[in-house]
Amino acid sequence: MVTKDHFTQFIHSLQDEICQALEELDGGAQFVEDLWERPGGGGGRSRVISKGNIFEKGGVSTSVVHGPMPDTLKKSMNVMGHSFFACGISLVLHPENPFIPTVHANYRYFEMYNGDGERIDAWFGGGSDLTPYYLFKEDAVHFHKTQKKAADSHGKELYPRFKKQCDDYFRNHHREEARGIGGTFFDYLKTDEKRDLEDWMRFDMDMAGAFLPSYLPLVKKRMKTSWNEEHRYWQELRRGRYVEFNLVHDRGTLFGLKTNGRTESILMSLPPRVRWDYNSEPEPGSEEAKLLAVLKNPKDWV
Amino acid sequence: MVTKDHFTQFIHSLQDEICQALEELDGGAQFVEDLWERPGGGGGRSRVISKGNIFEKGGVSTSVVHGPMPDTLKKSMNVMGHSFFACGISLVLHPENPFIPTVHANYRYFEMYNGDGERIDAWFGGGSDLTPYYLFKEDAVHFHKTQKKAADSHGKELYPRFKKQCDDYFRNHHREEARGIGGTFFDYLKTDEKRDLEDWMRFDMDMAGAFLPSYLPLVKKRMKTSWNEEHRYWQELRRGRYVEFNLVHDRGTLFGLKTNGRTESILMSLPPRVRWDYNSEPEPGSEEAKLLAVLKNPKDWV
Repeated sequence: MVTKDHFTQFIHSLQDEICQALEELDGGAQFVEDLWERPGGGGGRSRVISKGNIFEKGGVSTSVVHGPMPDTLKKSMNVMGHSFFACGISLVLHPENPFIPTVHANYRYFEMYNGDGERIDAWFGGGSDLTPYYLFKEDAVHFHKTQKKAADSHGKELYPRFKKQCDDYFRNHHREEARGIGGTFFDYLKTDEKRDLEDWMRFDMDMAGAFLPSYLPLVKKRMKTSWNEEHRYWQELRRGRYVEFNLVHDRGTLFGLKTNGRTESILMSLPPRVRWDYNSEPEPGSEEAKLLAVLKNPKDWV
Repeated sequence: MVTKDHFTQFIHSLQDEICQALEELDGGAQFVEDLWERPGGGGGRSRVISKGNIFEKGGVSTSVVHGPMPDTLKKSMNVMGHSFFACGISLVLHPENPFIPTVHANYRYFEMYNGDGERIDAWFGGGSDLTPYYLFKEDAVHFHKTQKKAADSHGKELYPRFKKQCDDYFRNHHREEARGIGGTFFDYLKTDEKRDLEDWMRFDMDMAGAFLPSYLPLVKKRMKTSWNEEHRYWQELRRGRYVEFNLVHDRGTLFGLKTNGRTESILMSLPPRVRWDYNSEPEPGSEEAKLLAVLKNPKDWV
């Protein structure tokens, strides 16, 4: 099968698998599906869960788009192409319980064609990162270990490289603070001396397949932990940092908003309830302060 | 007195006057002052009110900064200068009651010097805009009329010009929606054929002086209106749009965040509690829908 059909099929079945697993765990809310079409070609399948027993808000979406290469895309990617194809799965989950971390993941494939419709470039990208409100070392280790294991089977050098890229990317530079405790992040995975495009596809699929085993055990472990209004307050403040990252720094979000993307699908990633206080700082020595210390200086977890 | 000293004195006494008037009206909370210094020269006086009877969160701040022209400033303004001086007053008020509108105002002065310390350019800027959650036509008219009256005494052509600039600027382009019902917005007010810098200073001061009379009557009129959780829910959703504008589109905010400005002072403008739902739309014919219709198509209020 050609790569793009293979990967498209993969993201659609992964979307089903992830939504089903999350619904079963939540036991309350179900995903609501929104199909949309892109005027220039293609469309998407947005699935949103809200006000569940566990997930206060979340989205697990796929899109498969194609058409003439928009000028804004050429400019932002600094590439010359006549037309393009892009598909991907993207998810963000915001649990209500402040002891369950927020998670984000995205796996995607891009092709570019010349005026004769010949493929002139193609690459995979993706990653997944965790944003806890309270830090449990064992959770961070499990999340990273699961991704490392999936990456290691394709080459021991990959996890350290993509872990660092994740730390560098998901950073609120204006606060000198990481968004969370990282994970992996990679882009422009193209045929090179060691791997061809099919190798990268298998890598991308294995990393995507590691999402559920990296995250579900953390949800199961923390979902019974009771929380109070103070924990919630802190979670809402930290969610403000999540919004700051997505709206100020995230290239995908900004690109989408500035090129007439589907706003509701792009901003599906924003948390449901958020808070900003002026100059709020956690008590020295508190659990909240311990999280902040780690966000200031990313750690190696495995 | 030289212009910059005159205007600096003015913004400091206006800050005192505004804070005092707001505290008296609120009757609960008081402004807390934070003095800060800018490493490159100068500093500021941030004043924040929170959890008051009326004002859930708000800031009325002044800054007076100077020093060598940072490269980022040259680039963003597309100007060549050796050093600069800037001072201004900036305020945002987020009332708790959804029937009282949020308001923003900013009045500022900028000077640029060559290597010999000679002033090579100088201009005034500013404006004030209103963001209601429920639309009362008489409130919108009062807010605009008060600013128009202040502007008219300097030339009848000014209000229409700066009203339009405000509508054009405070716009969430990604939602094809205005942030609020506008007001005035102006920048780069320099000596021209009709007015010299002193004229523009008096204009800027008169516009700044119109802030309290434009806004306080609206607070007084709406502060006794009772509200329920549904009004509040809508207010929090709309505050999400306020955050989107400030973090995605507002030049001042982005410039500050990307050039190591004082993050807490810059983001003082963000609302205290905010909400994002997926694809939420008000009921057709509701008060909420009426507001949205006006935000889609800015109106002339006077």
